[in-house]
Amino acid sequence: MRTAILTVGTEILFGQIVNTNAAWLSQQLNDLGYDVMYHYTVGDNPQRLHDLIELAFRDCDLILTTGGLGPTQDDLTKEVICETMGDHLIVHEPSVRALEERAKARGRVLTENNYKQANMPSRAMVLPNDAGTAPGFALESAEGGKWIMSMPGPPREMTRMFDLQIRPILQKWQDSVIHYRMIRCFGIGESQLETDLLPLIDGQTDPTIATYAKEGECSLRIASKRPTLEEASAAVDEMTAKVSEIVGEYIYSYDNEELVDVVGNLLKEKKISVACAESCTGGLFAGALTEVPGISAVFDRGIVTYSNQAKIDELGVNPATLEAFGAVSMETACEMASGLANVSGCDLCISVTGEAGPESSEGKPVGTIYVGLCYKGETHAVQIPMRNNGRSWNRKYAVLNMMAEIYKAVK
Amino acid sequence: MRTAILTVGTEILFGQIVNTNAAWLSQQLNDLGYDVMYHYTVGDNPQRLHDLIELAFRDCDLILTTGGLGPTQDDLTKEVICETMGDHLIVHEPSVRALEERAKARGRVLTENNYKQANMPSRAMVLPNDAGTAPGFALESAEGGKWIMSMPGPPREMTRMFDLQIRPILQKWQDSVIHYRMIRCFGIGESQLETDLLPLIDGQTDPTIATYAKEGECSLRIASKRPTLEEASAAVDEMTAKVSEIVGEYIYSYDNEELVDVVGNLLKEKKISVACAESCTGGLFAGALTEVPGISAVFDRGIVTYSNQAKIDELGVNPATLEAFGAVSMETACEMASGLANVSGCDLCISVTGEAGPESSEGKPVGTIYVGLCYKGETHAVQIPMRNNGRSWNRKYAVLNMMAEIYKAVK
Repeated sequence: MRTAILTVGTEILFGQIVNTNAAWLSQQLNDLGYDVMYHYTVGDNPQRLHDLIELAFRDCDLILTTGGLGPTQDDLTKEVICETMGDHLIVHEPSVRALEERAKARGRVLTENNYKQANMPSRAMVLPNDAGTAPGFALESAEGGKWIMSMPGPPREMTRMFDLQIRPILQKWQDSVIHYRMIRCFGIGESQLETDLLPLIDGQTDPTIATYAKEGECSLRIASKRPTLEEASAAVDEMTAKVSEIVGEYIYSYDNEELVDVVGNLLKEKKISVACAESCTGGLFAGALTEVPGISAVFDRGIVTYSNQAKIDELGVNPATLEAFGAVSMETACEMASGLANVSGCDLCISVTGEAGPESSEGKPVGTIYVGLCYKGETHAVQIPMRNNGRSWNRKYAVLNMMAEIYKAVK
Repeated sequence: MRTAILTVGTEILFGQIVNTNAAWLSQQLNDLGYDVMYHYTVGDNPQRLHDLIELAFRDCDLILTTGGLGPTQDDLTKEVICETMGDHLIVHEPSVRALEERAKARGRVLTENNYKQANMPSRAMVLPNDAGTAPGFALESAEGGKWIMSMPGPPREMTRMFDLQIRPILQKWQDSVIHYRMIRCFGIGESQLETDLLPLIDGQTDPTIATYAKEGECSLRIASKRPTLEEASAAVDEMTAKVSEIVGEYIYSYDNEELVDVVGNLLKEKKISVACAESCTGGLFAGALTEVPGISAVFDRGIVTYSNQAKIDELGVNPATLEAFGAVSMETACEMASGLANVSGCDLCISVTGEAGPESSEGKPVGTIYVGLCYKGETHAVQIPMRNNGRSWNRKYAVLNMMAEIYKAVK
């Protein structure tokens, strides 16, 4: 089915936010086997919104909209859709009650404009919003055969509404099935990955293999479109086995998991208690690992020793080591990890020290980063092979490498 | 001048890349005083491209396009624009020579399709590309008054071509200037903010005031379009003063800064040394604060005390307190902050403890979060007024509130 994505929001036309909703929805629609023909963005202007809907329906049968469902005066999406689709708004009582309950639970009083969000097209299937105030809806044209599905703009609300309520409908409408698998790799670049897999990629029409670069990692997407899920799934499995033979050593997930989740789950499964000592990453490693639900069963503590004094106080790093080799050194990374093992008694202690930038404090080049690991009484450190891509990138890449070091040690 | 941004590229419709070009161009155009009415994205399909150009010209006089100028067969943007604008392609000799020189300098041989990039509309002003192979162009309609300016898709090439060649033209065309200010608020919802400002918003045409919701915060944009920058800027300042009178207590930045940057810079300016003790946020606070360049001058250490034992070991929290009130309590938050002050000797110590979810460990509702602050020897704690929006959101919102507590204490 031919589809258009229509984003309503002045803040996108002002360039204040990037339209990530359109990209995310495009991925989902393509994965479901829908052809995305257009992205449109328009402000809260009735005439322009109306014209775009008419244009889209010239060669699309489905329009997904995001945004413009809010409580304020300039949120007009619903009104225009109604008029274009030959419907009118009515007060949707269940949505009024949901708004009132939500406000009550939060001890707030609804303002008059809040109630506007509970007005819905009379023929619409209303899509409740359990992550925000504005419900969405799916509405068929008066003549039938053309659909608009409207979701709120905030990505957290939109993705949840799509996943729980719209995806199942779109799945039901399809007569062939796309099955795919995202394989995640670390320690190999995208060009090398593509070169290694060229014999499999060349001349392959189904399954297809595509490579994607992501901050410091890369991924492979193996996809098959067949009449049944069984056939598509078997084709993907067969190709996965071939891929694994060639680049298996770089693969950490066959199921699109994040490295942090793979590592967190390994630590939980194997009941390995863990602690971390961070300098340049400043808590990002601990922050990432503690994003994993249930990690408290094994994660004991993290120490951000930003100053040299903190490294000495908290981890027992030898001042002579800091003096002789500097805070950014293999030696300091080792002492941070082994010192933390003494303090915490954890099975596995990981440390990091480096120059994240923008300026170098000890004269070592920005991007110089060492990771230390103390596991089962053995301590070692490695220098991360990296380039300086700016403070924020350097810090994130250091965290990824810490995860990879743990993965190698405990997998 | 009314403007549309037209992005050509299948990879955007597949959701493989996010359309950052449209956002960047929108910012530039708005800052130049151009009204951006639409973003369109379409694949390399002549009919659909043609229809979109016609639609855009119904109420725009300028279309900026990116992408589709490459050497391959499916790059058709130029051909379609020519046909729509009543022009035809000719071989543009200077572009041929530029391509040949570029290839020679790189020791490459031009393939036949490379030469396609040197074909240009006969009436066009050609825009050389010194960062890539595809030149751009600016073309006026046969009847006059309507313009298309086409740039290549790669952001590095596009931004350079815009800055050096298109911006000067657009500047010359303008007879008015837009000036705006983004004001950032915390502690007030978007509906309430709009309600409070309604007397200013209603009936106001210039300056305009718009409100935006962002995860846990909200923003205000005050914009004015006047003949000179001085007039626009004075109008914005005057409205800013009125806004400040009404909702000033919620405003932390008049210059679109992030709360973490405002807090980090305050701490640096006032030379207030800082340390943090985190439980449920697991290092995210330290990670966020250490994103601020130069923060090492005042940030001493962060301690992630996930387990009760770590709270006792690292911060000297009294086991009796944990026993009597639980780890998630006002009392524990206070002892974490004051304990950290003892350990670190820092001027300001902030702590957090809470139930981030998905499950509650002590029977307190998920979303219950306490922030403790020890500053100048005084310790207090507050419960964050929040709802449970899922683990990841809860943690980020807790970090925002920690920043807000510090802001209130030191501003």
